[in-house]
Amino acid sequence: MCQLMAMSANVPTDARFSFSGLVERGGGSDIHRDGWGIAFYRGRGVQEFRDPEPSVNSQVAELVKSQPIKSEVVISHIRQANVGAVSLENTHPFVRELWGRYWVFAHNGQLRGVRKKLPLRRFHPVGSTDSEWAFCWLMGELDHHFMSWPRSPKQLGQFIDQCAAKLDELGVANFLLSDGRALYAHCTTRLHWLTRRAPFGVARLKDIEMEVDFSRETTPNDVVSVIATEPLTVGETWQQLAQGETIVALKGLIKTL
Amino acid sequence: MCQLMAMSANVPTDARFSFSGLVERGGGSDIHRDGWGIAFYRGRGVQEFRDPEPSVNSQVAELVKSQPIKSEVVISHIRQANVGAVSLENTHPFVRELWGRYWVFAHNGQLRGVRKKLPLRRFHPVGSTDSEWAFCWLMGELDHHFMSWPRSPKQLGQFIDQCAAKLDELGVANFLLSDGRALYAHCTTRLHWLTRRAPFGVARLKDIEMEVDFSRETTPNDVVSVIATEPLTVGETWQQLAQGETIVALKGLIKTL
Repeated sequence: MCQLMAMSANVPTDARFSFSGLVERGGGSDIHRDGWGIAFYRGRGVQEFRDPEPSVNSQVAELVKSQPIKSEVVISHIRQANVGAVSLENTHPFVRELWGRYWVFAHNGQLRGVRKKLPLRRFHPVGSTDSEWAFCWLMGELDHHFMSWPRSPKQLGQFIDQCAAKLDELGVANFLLSDGRALYAHCTTRLHWLTRRAPFGVARLKDIEMEVDFSRETTPNDVVSVIATEPLTVGETWQQLAQGETIVALKGLIKTL
Repeated sequence: MCQLMAMSANVPTDARFSFSGLVERGGGSDIHRDGWGIAFYRGRGVQEFRDPEPSVNSQVAELVKSQPIKSEVVISHIRQANVGAVSLENTHPFVRELWGRYWVFAHNGQLRGVRKKLPLRRFHPVGSTDSEWAFCWLMGELDHHFMSWPRSPKQLGQFIDQCAAKLDELGVANFLLSDGRALYAHCTTRLHWLTRRAPFGVARLKDIEMEVDFSRETTPNDVVSVIATEPLTVGETWQQLAQGETIVALKGLIKTL
């Protein structure tokens, strides 16, 4: 099993606090030693950092923790390999362009029979994971169904939810997906979320000794949601997604579909 | 005008020396202050670093200079914006997946009328540069012409050369393109290359005081070619590409088409 983390915010927001907790699980407090990656949307562009090295030893991860990169949508993943070798091309998140937008995807879980059950259209995996195959299938389905970028994130989310139900039939499909506008998250087994907004308080990471007083880092209008496999903090109330549930985060607000 | 740098090698090779010279031109010894990027192929995967900040001030560039990332194909670009705002989505190199391979592209020059003259197929630009448009057009042409990844880099190179001739009609198309196996370079106006092989000697950068004794860093079997807008070193003989010429570098060796 791998670990997922994502953020959606209504203003460009620094995700270092959550990322710092996550990367500890990459060989520090946990066993996810087989690479990690993070993608920051900044405008329509994506700044990505990835490394097949364990995140706790990674100098690239150190850099990410030291840089105040502000982003409205972030997707991150640390990997414990079960399908596909430990290599750069198998390191999540995966990125493809569709309709002039970059789509970013990260997955936790195992899917069986993807090659037989999920026929590909124009997108093809570069690596050998079931995750990238499922992403390429999903991108092909989106392209085929919509033809162009749908105006409504809800409409898009409902179709993603239908596709996710097909993935659920093949195993575990906890995943994060974004087109840079909305962040979609689907839960087969384990995924949690919380929304931070005024009045902001202090949050303390579970995995390392680190706390942030968000009232000092934010304005009263800021709204930020964080989604993660396991809650990243103590002293805050994380919601657990239901099995088979898909949610959409738009400008920091979580909505069910 | 922007500056390009690429490397092809027959063994995974550290490109920091050339990159250190290039990034000095990003606001240090030169005027290319509008962002930079570098893509390292490692196996089939691509590790990319990019930043809309000037490369000489960039902490991400400092990290790249400090990391011994070994790669067989590297493409890098520093930007002086003339078309398209200074933003992450307009920062080269650009990446797309075709036939289960990542393709990386960087361009120097201005192309006029791309929107009218270069009709797109399935690939679309995310940003607003003529460069990314031309890349998406080229990817569409490749997909349409070959249907699947051609076995022969020469065959692929000859088709890329034909496409490049069309780009030359629209302006200046000095560009670098790779599928991770071969590195293709086309020259409209300015592009230089050299090949380093045994017996290796000492090379000194033009833009900063830095030299490397390659005889200490290499084995006698290593072959490495570097392609750059302007020669990066003194005391070595750089070849200038002819106008309209396309070359292919395969495992460190340069061939004309």
